[in-house]
Amino acid sequence: MAKPLILVTNDGGINAPGIRNLISVMKEIGDVIVVAPDSPQSGMGHAITINSTLHTSRITPINSEITEYSCSGTPADCVKLAINELLDRKPDICVSGINHGSNSSINVVYSGTMSAAIEAGIEGIPAIGFSLLDYRWNADFSPLKPFIEKITRAAIQNKQRADVVLNVNFPALPEGEIKGIRVCRQAKANWVEKFDKRQSPMGRDYYWLTGEFINEDKGQDTDEWALKEGYISVVPTQFDLTAHHAIQELNSWNFEN
Amino acid sequence: MAKPLILVTNDGGINAPGIRNLISVMKEIGDVIVVAPDSPQSGMGHAITINSTLHTSRITPINSEITEYSCSGTPADCVKLAINELLDRKPDICVSGINHGSNSSINVVYSGTMSAAIEAGIEGIPAIGFSLLDYRWNADFSPLKPFIEKITRAAIQNKQRADVVLNVNFPALPEGEIKGIRVCRQAKANWVEKFDKRQSPMGRDYYWLTGEFINEDKGQDTDEWALKEGYISVVPTQFDLTAHHAIQELNSWNFEN
Repeated sequence: MAKPLILVTNDGGINAPGIRNLISVMKEIGDVIVVAPDSPQSGMGHAITINSTLHTSRITPINSEITEYSCSGTPADCVKLAINELLDRKPDICVSGINHGSNSSINVVYSGTMSAAIEAGIEGIPAIGFSLLDYRWNADFSPLKPFIEKITRAAIQNKQRADVVLNVNFPALPEGEIKGIRVCRQAKANWVEKFDKRQSPMGRDYYWLTGEFINEDKGQDTDEWALKEGYISVVPTQFDLTAHHAIQELNSWNFEN
Repeated sequence: MAKPLILVTNDGGINAPGIRNLISVMKEIGDVIVVAPDSPQSGMGHAITINSTLHTSRITPINSEITEYSCSGTPADCVKLAINELLDRKPDICVSGINHGSNSSINVVYSGTMSAAIEAGIEGIPAIGFSLLDYRWNADFSPLKPFIEKITRAAIQNKQRADVVLNVNFPALPEGEIKGIRVCRQAKANWVEKFDKRQSPMGRDYYWLTGEFINEDKGQDTDEWALKEGYISVVPTQFDLTAHHAIQELNSWNFEN
């Protein structure tokens, strides 16, 4: 079998340690092409650039035969550009990350890492987003590597569906303490925002968005539960947002009142 | 019954004709507070501002007793700021739009209009996003107004669930030609991107994102079908992205190879 072509991207920017670690794992599995933002894009959700131009730069890292492009756009832009403009053929799989910080539960909707993976899914390419529950730039990604390799190989071998994108989160645990892999649902949890209100030197009010993460979902089939117990969470994620269960109820509404 | 408190926002910016039309309808239904971006935010998806500060300005439009705030952030930021900082009490409903352009089918994932509504849903507030299939700044919103009023009143009367956000799209038809309201699922349709590659005066390549919208979903229960036939589409939309149907299959994968 020919080596799979693997598109690697992220939201932390092409120089983030997370993506450098992800590239090093993917080199063992297939041919790698990197198209990633030229600067950090955390919290970009599924933003795309429609009222502005996009630039790319081809980068040749020292001692590397891998083709890399940095892009001025969002994570979703990177995937669109890669697939439709930069790559000679459709990649076999797209991996995004490793994100510095959690994309579990409701974080998935704010996540640039996952939006890149979801964009690949929309374009018909199987995709996985990887995130580590450690925000630090110098987080230790080495315990994750064997698991990332196993999950990616399993996705290729099992012919992962493009319309089911994997959201993989890792607990911040040292080598040997990760208990294994759990397939989960997204926990019903959310942020309770607190805005830190300050005053500029010119006397104008401004805010920093902060908040506290609250999980009231006690289910043992959730990503939050798995991560707390020391497991890697794998949530199958879709981009058909229809609440099919609500259609019947809505059809009973009287819109004429 | 006390008048409902209605939070109005959008992604086209506080001065867009779409939101001005939405405000004029909401004034007939309840007490209105507006918190909207100070500039257009189309295509922002569910972006939030975490690496930068947020500013708000209180605006007092001429001949208006409505409190309005413009905000430097994204549509999702506006909703977070409104609910957690600017409003004295929780709004009874949040409406977003009217977007100049479609948010049907896959457009929902790129939509700032819908991300604002979804953010309200995440915060426990029933929410509706309204969009018109006409991109023009001077689009005619008047045929929509009676329908927007009916849908919003129905949502309040039927105690809409916060975890099911309504994505409402209007066909661009003159008064009297809209056939009615259809509850739909999101069509399986997507954009086939084409990048318009140009060269700057300095000789550097850059791109504009363009594309063609392709709908291969022939279902007559979809939003695309309803809109094409002259109906208003109402898609119940959720922020639990779990592909529950895929969990069983994923649990059969062997991750140890």
